[in-house]
Amino acid sequence: MRLLRIFLTALLLFGALYAGDPLPSWNEGPAKERILTFVEKVTREGSPAYVAPAERIAVFDNDGTLWSERPLPFQIIYAMDRIKTMALRHPEWKDQQPFKAVLEGDMQSLKKQGKKGLLTILAAVFAGPDRAAMQNEVAEWLATAKHPRFDKPYGELRYKPMMELLRYLDSKGFKNFVVSGGGIDFMRAYIPGDYGIPSERILGSYAETRFEKGEIVKLPTVAYVNDKAYKPIAIYRNIGLRPILAVGNSDGDLAMLQYSAAGRGENLQVYIHHTDGKREFAYDKMELGTLEKGLVAAKEGDWLVVDMKNDWKEIF
Amino acid sequence: MRLLRIFLTALLLFGALYAGDPLPSWNEGPAKERILTFVEKVTREGSPAYVAPAERIAVFDNDGTLWSERPLPFQIIYAMDRIKTMALRHPEWKDQQPFKAVLEGDMQSLKKQGKKGLLTILAAVFAGPDRAAMQNEVAEWLATAKHPRFDKPYGELRYKPMMELLRYLDSKGFKNFVVSGGGIDFMRAYIPGDYGIPSERILGSYAETRFEKGEIVKLPTVAYVNDKAYKPIAIYRNIGLRPILAVGNSDGDLAMLQYSAAGRGENLQVYIHHTDGKREFAYDKMELGTLEKGLVAAKEGDWLVVDMKNDWKEIF
Repeated sequence: MRLLRIFLTALLLFGALYAGDPLPSWNEGPAKERILTFVEKVTREGSPAYVAPAERIAVFDNDGTLWSERPLPFQIIYAMDRIKTMALRHPEWKDQQPFKAVLEGDMQSLKKQGKKGLLTILAAVFAGPDRAAMQNEVAEWLATAKHPRFDKPYGELRYKPMMELLRYLDSKGFKNFVVSGGGIDFMRAYIPGDYGIPSERILGSYAETRFEKGEIVKLPTVAYVNDKAYKPIAIYRNIGLRPILAVGNSDGDLAMLQYSAAGRGENLQVYIHHTDGKREFAYDKMELGTLEKGLVAAKEGDWLVVDMKNDWKEIF
Repeated sequence: MRLLRIFLTALLLFGALYAGDPLPSWNEGPAKERILTFVEKVTREGSPAYVAPAERIAVFDNDGTLWSERPLPFQIIYAMDRIKTMALRHPEWKDQQPFKAVLEGDMQSLKKQGKKGLLTILAAVFAGPDRAAMQNEVAEWLATAKHPRFDKPYGELRYKPMMELLRYLDSKGFKNFVVSGGGIDFMRAYIPGDYGIPSERILGSYAETRFEKGEIVKLPTVAYVNDKAYKPIAIYRNIGLRPILAVGNSDGDLAMLQYSAAGRGENLQVYIHHTDGKREFAYDKMELGTLEKGLVAAKEGDWLVVDMKNDWKEIF
């Protein structure tokens, strides 16, 4: 018994050393308070809203929620950069769409190619047998290629308040998942190291594959686009528990937030609203990352809408 | 510093209290030794075969690997039992195949209905909106319905040596996953509580679904049959790391074991061979749970074949 007492005392003292504000990049105010109150409610034993650790599932959209998505989602910027390098071995691309448009930086023509054009580019960059090599290239690109406006590597454009939130939830026994429209292999190249979310908690879009001689071979066809209603469906398939916390920034996340909101116990839905044109970007009604229906649902459901300009002390 | 020393000492002493044989239901011999040696090699820091905890992925087939699968996989026995209860509200079933065959216990007729007949039964039992109610019924059935031969509830027919192995791996920082042909909702009803494997680490077969008013609605159509090549494909999609340990008992697990075996670092593939007709069942060339190609591959690849009769001190 003495041993147990020493052990527990040591644990408590270590805990105290850690104490302090878990969300220092959030301004004091209702948004921060609501998050802290929610977490305290569901984690304090004896609380009527207590949720067992196994069921503390938190899901996060990625682009525009955990890091920037402007001027385009970084996976697409990466793919276009990569096409330029790969073009050295593909001289035929300079006369062939959609590659021609990318090589000439002609965004108008590229847009004309539509979804099919984009998928062709993504397939050229992300299909193929050697995923490890591809992922090394992604990691290197994120560490070196710089965002046109912020003059910082793309990999550093994670939102500091959100990284704090992930760590805080983790310390409170939550299981954090990324549920994004991004490709699983692209995300696996940096999320485990940069966000502290392990590979098996990353849900995303993926290509058709076949199994051949011990290897997974990616085919140039999309099998699953993890957006809208497909987000809760992916959560059902891969996780099997309804999230008690769901965070997104666009109408593409609405179904995921609705799925969380329909839970019986205590739960919280959060929209990150891009209101800070000065420090980041201000948008909600534009083509990319549209947040319109979501704001209506947030009002009706009393969800938390985080105002980046006023609620975040720092962005990056 | 003094505090840190007390803390570490307490940790070490607690560790020592736990020491002892982690696999007491395994007979001493080459199978047990090979498993212990493998785990020691990949977990000891400084070992040339060391694998970081994030990559200690272990995958297990379920039916016939972690629990019995005879006379039929228990999910199918459950479904047939359940059809009998549900028939009270479906008087038309007594003249309608495949239900008629189930209600009359006519296995010959049932077999004639083929795969389509089986899927119709599974859809009748497992589709529908209220998954929580269905899972409560499954859990109750597993705790009460008795296996015809062993006179024990089905839920107790887990293999004790395998449960020890799961716990041992868990204590060594491995992440255990079930990768089974069973349905995800059926498995989620008991695996988290009975095996200590959380919901998000259960990969299985699943139905088509649609998202409607905040809920996942299961449709009576199969979307994914998690068998053969679809096992490594599911591992790629859901986990994203190649398993360093893969365990199965049939040719349906062969692709999963091959995927693990093609890894570059230290890895181990294990087949559980049903050799004990006295204490369990002896089979490998029968229609259900066939293990033929697998045994050839095991020989060629020097995989571990566990002989249930000789390697296991206890079965249940």
